[in-house]
Formats: sequence, C-alpha cells, structure tokens
Amino acid sequence: MAAKDTPLFPRVALLGIGLIGSSLSHAMRRHGLAGEIAIQTRRSETLEKARELNLGDHYTSDPAAAVEDADLVIFCVPVGANKAVAELVGPALKPGATVTDVGSCKRVVINDIGPFLPDGVHLVPAHPVAGTEYSGPESGFAELFEGRWAILTPEPDTDADAIEKVAEFWRRVGSDVEIMDADHHDQVLAITSHLPHLIAYTIVDTATELGGDLQKEVIKFSASGFRDFTRIAASDPVMWRDVFLNNREAVLDILGRFTEDLTALRRAIRRGDGDMLHDTFARTRDVRRGVIDAKQA
Amino acid sequence: MAAKDTPLFPRVALLGIGLIGSSLSHAMRRHGLAGEIAIQTRRSETLEKARELNLGDHYTSDPAAAVEDADLVIFCVPVGANKAVAELVGPALKPGATVTDVGSCKRVVINDIGPFLPDGVHLVPAHPVAGTEYSGPESGFAELFEGRWAILTPEPDTDADAIEKVAEFWRRVGSDVEIMDADHHDQVLAITSHLPHLIAYTIVDTATELGGDLQKEVIKFSASGFRDFTRIAASDPVMWRDVFLNNREAVLDILGRFTEDLTALRRAIRRGDGDMLHDTFARTRDVRRGVIDAKQA
Repeated sequence: MAAKDTPLFPRVALLGIGLIGSSLSHAMRRHGLAGEIAIQTRRSETLEKARELNLGDHYTSDPAAAVEDADLVIFCVPVGANKAVAELVGPALKPGATVTDVGSCKRVVINDIGPFLPDGVHLVPAHPVAGTEYSGPESGFAELFEGRWAILTPEPDTDADAIEKVAEFWRRVGSDVEIMDADHHDQVLAITSHLPHLIAYTIVDTATELGGDLQKEVIKFSASGFRDFTRIAASDPVMWRDVFLNNREAVLDILGRFTEDLTALRRAIRRGDGDMLHDTFARTRDVRRGVIDAKQA
Repeated sequence: MAAKDTPLFPRVALLGIGLIGSSLSHAMRRHGLAGEIAIQTRRSETLEKARELNLGDHYTSDPAAAVEDADLVIFCVPVGANKAVAELVGPALKPGATVTDVGSCKRVVINDIGPFLPDGVHLVPAHPVAGTEYSGPESGFAELFEGRWAILTPEPDTDADAIEKVAEFWRRVGSDVEIMDADHHDQVLAITSHLPHLIAYTIVDTATELGGDLQKEVIKFSASGFRDFTRIAASDPVMWRDVFLNNREAVLDILGRFTEDLTALRRAIRRGDGDMLHDTFARTRDVRRGVIDAKQA
C-alpha cells in the first residue's frame, strides 16, 4: 500500500459525539485519516444515534474502553466534563498516544486533562474555530472545518512530532493551523467569540422577557438586526455554560471594558451628544474593512 | 395606454439619494411606478454621481425646485435633516401631493415634517426595514425592498386614499406592508434594530481600543462571532447618530433592561452559577425557533 494511503492514525477515539465529534468522524472518513474510529458517549440514546449514522467502527459508553489502543484520543465533550473523563481514561491510554480536544477554552484543558496523562502520552490541545447553531451527532458534516482556523495550544515542552501530527490532522480536514500560547488564546477568543455570544444571549433574553404581543412583533421584524443575534444565541447551552465558567477571568475583563464603552454611548444618547456618537460609529467602519481585507467576511 | 401602464405617480421627488433613495429610483424604474423622477441632494458631488448613474430625469440641489409639481415626495435624508428640508419644501408642495419618508424613527418624522405641510398635503410616514452596510447612490439596487417589511405610521386622521397609494407603492417594489402607530413602531424597532446596532457598534469599538497585535488577532479570528457584529457596525454613521438622537426614550428604556440582564449574567459568571447561565442560554433557543417559524431567518 502506498504511503499516501496509510491513515494518519491507525486508531482514533472520539470521546463525545456532538456536532464537532460527528463532523470529525465525517471528515476523517472522507480524507482517510483514521484506520478505525472508536466512539464513546455517556448517553445510550446518543450512542444509538451515532451507530445509526454509522459514524464509527466501535461504540461504547465506557471512555476507558474507547481509548484502548487508540493512537489519537480526541476529547469532544463540553469543556466542563474534561476532567472527569480524563480521570477515567488516563490509566487506559496507550504509551506514546496523542491526546487532543476541541474546546473553546484552552488553559483549563491543560489544567484539567494534563495531570491525568501518563508519561509518554502527548497533550496537544486544539480549538477548531468552527461551529453552527445546531447540536448533536445528526448535525455533523465533513466540511465544517474547511477554511476555518484550528488553533493549537501545546505547552513549550510538548513533543514536536506530536504537535506536527495534530497540525497535519487539522490541515487534512481543511483547516488553517495556528499555534499559540493557551492564555493568549483564551484572551483573544474572549473578545472574538465569548463576549459576542454572551451579548447575543443577553439581548435575546431581554426580548424574551417582553410581553406576548411585543415579543411576537420583535420576531416579525427581526430582520432589522435582531435576527443575527438569535442565530448566535441558539448555540448549545451546555457548551456555552462551560465556556463562561472556564474562561471567567478573560471574559470578565473584556466584559468590563465593553460595559464601560456602552455606558459612555448611553450617556451620549441621553445628553444628545451627536458628535461622540458619530465619531464612534465612523471608527468602527474601519474594523469591518480589516475583516474584509483579512478575508474573514 | 392601458391603465396598468399608467405610472402610480406621474412625478416623484427623491430628497436625498443615498442607499435607500438610489434603490427606490432603481425599483421605481423597474416597476414603472413614476412618470418622472426628480432628484435633489445637497452635495454637488453626490448629485453628479446620481446623474452619472442615470437615477433620475431631473437633478437639482434645491429641495423646493425638486418638489414642484411632484405627486409623491420621498424624504430620503438622515432623520435629523428632515426638519430643515421640510421647512424649505413646505411652501412649494403641490396641493393634494403625498409626502412620505424612509426613516428608522417615526414619531420624530411626524413632529418634524408635519407642521410644515400645507392643508391638503398628505403625510404617510414609511420605514422600509431593509438596508445593507453600504451607503451612497452607487450602493443602490432595485431588489433591496423585495420580501422585506415596509411599515407605515400614518396618524389616525390621514386621508385613506393617500395611505392606500403609498401602501401600493411599497407593495409594487416587493415589500410586505404593515400599518402601525408611530410610537409603537419606535418601541418595536428600538428592540429589533436600534439596540442591536448600538451593541454591535460598542463591541467593535471595544475591540478597536485594544493594542495593535491583539487587534490584528481579533480580526484574524473574527469568524467565531465577532464578524457578524462588524458587519452591523459598518452601517452609515450619520444615519445611526440620528436614529439614536431621535428615538432616545425608547432606546434608553430597552438599553436599561439589557444592562440589567447583562449585569445578572456577569454576576452569574463571577459566582460560577452554572445553572443560571444554562437556564438563560436554553431559554433563548426558543426565540430562534420563533424567528425560523416566522420565516425571518
């Protein structure tokens, strides 16, 4: 068999099979990245659904059984569940195996998973900056990672070959790979992702509290701006609860700055300070230009 | 000539020729709604641009000259400019003419334009809930209003025929017409449009204040949520300054509620109250379902 047909990892274990785990299964199959795929999830209905969708070669509710003999273990559970799962799988990991994950906060992953890994097992945390507002194994699709960022946050002493192999894995599913420090990742994502989600959840919740008729009209005329927020605010509640609990400091810091800025605009509205409003609104246009230039629009 | 070929209005005057005015010109031409179109704008470069784009049949920088003999006069200037323009055109309006506008706040339009209209001229304020992040006459296109709402907010004593004709005008450019009280409009739009824009401007401005390297990374990883806000925050600064200055009470009211709700979530994050976060995030999913069911997604 030609080298190019050899899978990148003979055996991959997916711990958790929601939107991301399922999409990884589809993508690994399409690109021939795994010799075989073991799928583990706690709830029997979800495991059954994964089996119906033919997402793997082995199915189990036992994390330790799933990682046995696995060359790559991918944690795809909500960030808050990593620690308990790591404790279960640690002793069952194959020497030389690589462990990665897909969580939106990275320092906590190192803190929660790292201590349970035996010597010789490599931890290369990863964050695919990709997702949809849908959840569950039936929502996954192979193209989810194409053209999106995969951010790796290994510690400085991590095995270089393990890092390169995980980077290659993400490149093969179509992502652009970036390597950065875990704390820096958490700070950047607090701004680009966590704060926007918190704001979207809040504004939709504010509208939800309005009386019945008014709420109906808000939905009816949602295309005027509100609609975009409802899409973001439909993301998985468990995943996002865990994000905010596990990137607390960075989120509270940027939220503090946001609140200050909002208070200043509110004051300008109350005082009728049109110049201040205009200057702010003109400034933010340039950021959009940057987003377009960076081909992220 | 068959009745169906008779234009709805023999002569239409567009006061202001930005994104909306230009799109109205394209749409009127496509659907044969105007016998002739007079275009007025203050700045000579913009007037020249409109002429290059062949948006009208007559061009002038004088509002009074533009409305002479016009059957329909459409104010397409920023809301804050209505009053000064109304004062100029009032004495030149043809008896029996209909005046409408395209502003995002409606009570202020009635207050600012109404007093300058002679008896027998009908005011039917309108708000096409449509737009893009682009501005200027070159950004207009005929399809902008298709499938979007046009909200009319006439006072109770307004001539029924004038209302019906303006409604027909919007239906012919492809919009769904809704008639509501001006104050109610301002309350609903404060929630669905004005607050979302204010929040988006704020969050993008907060990111703008960050140091150079961090700002570059925020743009690089903007697809994780931030991107959607930059699009909204690239809207026309003059238009939005005027919206906030002219719908102040409704905006401050909903902003107060939003701030309370955000403070509650911030407290939950600080205290590590996962149940409160989860409950909020689960609740907002249902609103998205409503948006999808209302075919506004």
